[in-house]
Amino acid sequence: MSHNLLLLSNSKIHGKGYLEHAMDAIVEFLDGCHVLHFVPYAQTEYEAYTQRVRTALQPLGVEVIGLNAGSNPREVVKEAEVLFVGGGNTFRLLRSVQQLGLVELVRQRVLAGELSYMGSSAGTNHACPTIRTTNDMPIVQPVSFEAFGLVPFQINPHYQDADPRSTHMGETREERICQFLEENDVPVLAMREGAWLRRQGSKLILQGQTGALLFQRGTEPTPYEEEADLSFLLNLPTQFDTSL
Amino acid sequence: MSHNLLLLSNSKIHGKGYLEHAMDAIVEFLDGCHVLHFVPYAQTEYEAYTQRVRTALQPLGVEVIGLNAGSNPREVVKEAEVLFVGGGNTFRLLRSVQQLGLVELVRQRVLAGELSYMGSSAGTNHACPTIRTTNDMPIVQPVSFEAFGLVPFQINPHYQDADPRSTHMGETREERICQFLEENDVPVLAMREGAWLRRQGSKLILQGQTGALLFQRGTEPTPYEEEADLSFLLNLPTQFDTSL
Repeated sequence: MSHNLLLLSNSKIHGKGYLEHAMDAIVEFLDGCHVLHFVPYAQTEYEAYTQRVRTALQPLGVEVIGLNAGSNPREVVKEAEVLFVGGGNTFRLLRSVQQLGLVELVRQRVLAGELSYMGSSAGTNHACPTIRTTNDMPIVQPVSFEAFGLVPFQINPHYQDADPRSTHMGETREERICQFLEENDVPVLAMREGAWLRRQGSKLILQGQTGALLFQRGTEPTPYEEEADLSFLLNLPTQFDTSL
Repeated sequence: MSHNLLLLSNSKIHGKGYLEHAMDAIVEFLDGCHVLHFVPYAQTEYEAYTQRVRTALQPLGVEVIGLNAGSNPREVVKEAEVLFVGGGNTFRLLRSVQQLGLVELVRQRVLAGELSYMGSSAGTNHACPTIRTTNDMPIVQPVSFEAFGLVPFQINPHYQDADPRSTHMGETREERICQFLEENDVPVLAMREGAWLRRQGSKLILQGQTGALLFQRGTEPTPYEEEADLSFLLNLPTQFDTSL
């Protein structure tokens, strides 16, 4: 087995149901697996959130088990085949997975090809080396910003192009990502809502219909469209402002 | 002397120059002081940023000294009368003031009434107990989220009301603040661009023309307009998810 990742910018696009826009990609990603373990910690109502995923994936005949259901999430993750980390607040999610001792375990099993990983929004941020390109409010304080590190670059989910008519003076998303690049020499893939990344081993493909922008220090952002081969991102050098 | 604070939601509103919208409030806040020390660490170009402030305040006959200009910012802050902490990236600013050993020093001198404090955007976030209600991207990792704590509640600057026509699925600002309240029982004053807070001792007044919303756990947000007396916020109980 090799790395098997599905990283969604977001779980829902305007006018469609939860996960509906990416259902074909989920079927392909699951590759016949019938049990999925769900990580609901980015939100507060674990059971309701798990039920939402269960309902969405029921047509696929997939059993969805919330990681919160058992008494020992670590033991569950040690045996799981597919993990889906849902969106919500990235800082809350990271605090939880750190407290539960899951960070290193998930990283090792995914990189060993033993655990397939699907994320949306905050769950996709968690596939990066750090959560430093999240859009979320830092409502709680994790012990560090270090995340699962399943890909070596950073992702910005829910990417929004600047609205030229806006009179708001707060930073645009592009400006925020440029601030990140001032401090860190690490590529940032900014995925619009409706886009996702599919990693299979050393192959990384952009999918969905909305595309992405690649931000790198010292250059203009590069646009990519559906089916772009982004495998080179797995081999680019990176330099965070401090060692991780 | 007593606490003397001017906390701007933002430094610039659409169609006006830097600090122009709040110039009368700055004159009143300065109360004849002719030297202001500027903290430029939320941005990267310290000298250019300080020059921007210098140019804006030149008509007032105020001498603006960048905290970066001297070799020992701590010694400068020990003697300063007025500090202005400018906007940019809140995480970068906090990392810098922590590294320079300024957090406790600024807190003590402001709360003792020895140092007047003006902030905009990230600088206003820093007047709160923590930076947990910033809008900024966590591009670097400060050692903690604890900030100057010059007021006991949290502020969200650059507040944006939700756009009912939006098809974007990322959280609205209101939803992000509600996530904060799920974890922390601490009032959040969300100030629209163009609004500011003026604290003089135990008196706290909302100013500017755009108003603010007060978010508290378990209640609907309460709108406040120009000249509202918010002094009660200085005495409300607060409970962060962990002790600071």
